[in-house]
Amino acid sequence: MVGQSVLLAAVSFLSSCQQSYFAWQVGNARMKCKVAPPAVTGSLEFERIFRAQQNSLEFYPIFIVNLWIAGWYFNQVYAACLGFMYMFARHKYFWGYAEAADKRVIGFRLSLGILFLLGVLSAMGLTSSLLDEYLDFHVAKKLRGAF
Amino acid sequence: MVGQSVLLAAVSFLSSCQQSYFAWQVGNARMKCKVAPPAVTGSLEFERIFRAQQNSLEFYPIFIVNLWIAGWYFNQVYAACLGFMYMFARHKYFWGYAEAADKRVIGFRLSLGILFLLGVLSAMGLTSSLLDEYLDFHVAKKLRGAF
Amino acid sequence: MVGQSVLLAAVSFLSSCQQSYFAWQVGNARMKCKVAPPAVTGSLEFERIFRAQQNSLEFYPIFIVNLWIAGWYFNQVYAACLGFMYMFARHKYFWGYAEAADKRVIGFRLSLGILFLLGVLSAMGLTSSLLDEYLDFHVAKKLRGAF
Repeated sequence: MVGQSVLLAAVSFLSSCQQSYFAWQVGNARMKCKVAPPAVTGSLEFERIFRAQQNSLEFYPIFIVNLWIAGWYFNQVYAACLGFMYMFARHKYFWGYAEAADKRVIGFRLSLGILFLLGVLSAMGLTSSLLDEYLDFHVAKKLRGAF
Repeated sequence: MVGQSVLLAAVSFLSSCQQSYFAWQVGNARMKCKVAPPAVTGSLEFERIFRAQQNSLEFYPIFIVNLWIAGWYFNQVYAACLGFMYMFARHKYFWGYAEAADKRVIGFRLSLGILFLLGVLSAMGLTSSLLDEYLDFHVAKKLRGAF
Repeated sequence: MVGQSVLLAAVSFLSSCQQSYFAWQVGNARMKCKVAPPAVTGSLEFERIFRAQQNSLEFYPIFIVNLWIAGWYFNQVYAACLGFMYMFARHKYFWGYAEAADKRVIGFRLSLGILFLLGVLSAMGLTSSLLDEYLDFHVAKKLRGAF
């Protein structure tokens, strides 16, 4: 169960690169819009990019936790694919928000939908593992036996 | 040691749901108080809910790290119970802060106390594992031998 | 590969203590500069300390992800050493920023450099593991055979 996790690690690594890239864009926007630290307001363009990065960051630990739980307790390959799709959705969200506040919506909804799917996989995997360990009830075996 | 971690995963999953729920409440408050993105100021009620979510989020990676270290290196069941209590404390904190800035204090102190306990368990478990691995000194065996 | 991780856990634990310490300093600055929650502006000194903590926090999940991937897939001891250096760089950054916005630069660049090195180790370890698992190509063996 905990054995193979190289794909999860690869997705985590790439998404950490993406987060660093977003942080770097905020630094760029700071210079471009002449917002001197520690201020975080003053230019609407900077504020949008800053909020886009902040929002991506807020969801990052939630994403990582669900990615690994879905990967460990359900299926590594499915979790890694959803992880890649989540990165793409965040990419769309970030650049949409950087252009205009309204353009953030599509990417945001997409990212939430993928995160929800990851959560469903996590919940299914965890339920099966908990039943298995504490009630000795093997969901996978029963399902296989039923068909 | 690293073997059993399904309870830790369950607590992590539930706490990630709680974080998502807090983020969703911020979105609701945004609409209710008519604070258009990317702004994060303008309504005191929105600001309180926003800060409550931000603070929970700031402590989330610290919580997850200590939960897993306490669970892996000390005891999974104790760590998971403290994890549940932490989620309850954060719940109290969030809704207290949403009502009034003063009402956040009880939940906040409670959450810090539980996080401190998790930290103590982590430190004890890690010390024992480090002594065991690098100095070949088995704390658990010595303790058992003493009684 | 996933076996030994007590050093990574120790660095993670210490860095979570450092993050808690930064958060505590923000609380102190709040009282000293008389910035009543939920406000986060009003005093330049408070804003600097607040931004220093926020920035450390933003990079914390990225740091933890890279620390563990570098440790699991490349080498635990190297990763843990870089982790300690990162904590030192963040310490310099935080107290530099608390004094003046300009003094944050050295610590910040140092921390980014160390994070970049951790990322390089992660990428190398992951590439080797992925080649090994999906293409059955053993980099370590080939290198050893070449000398």
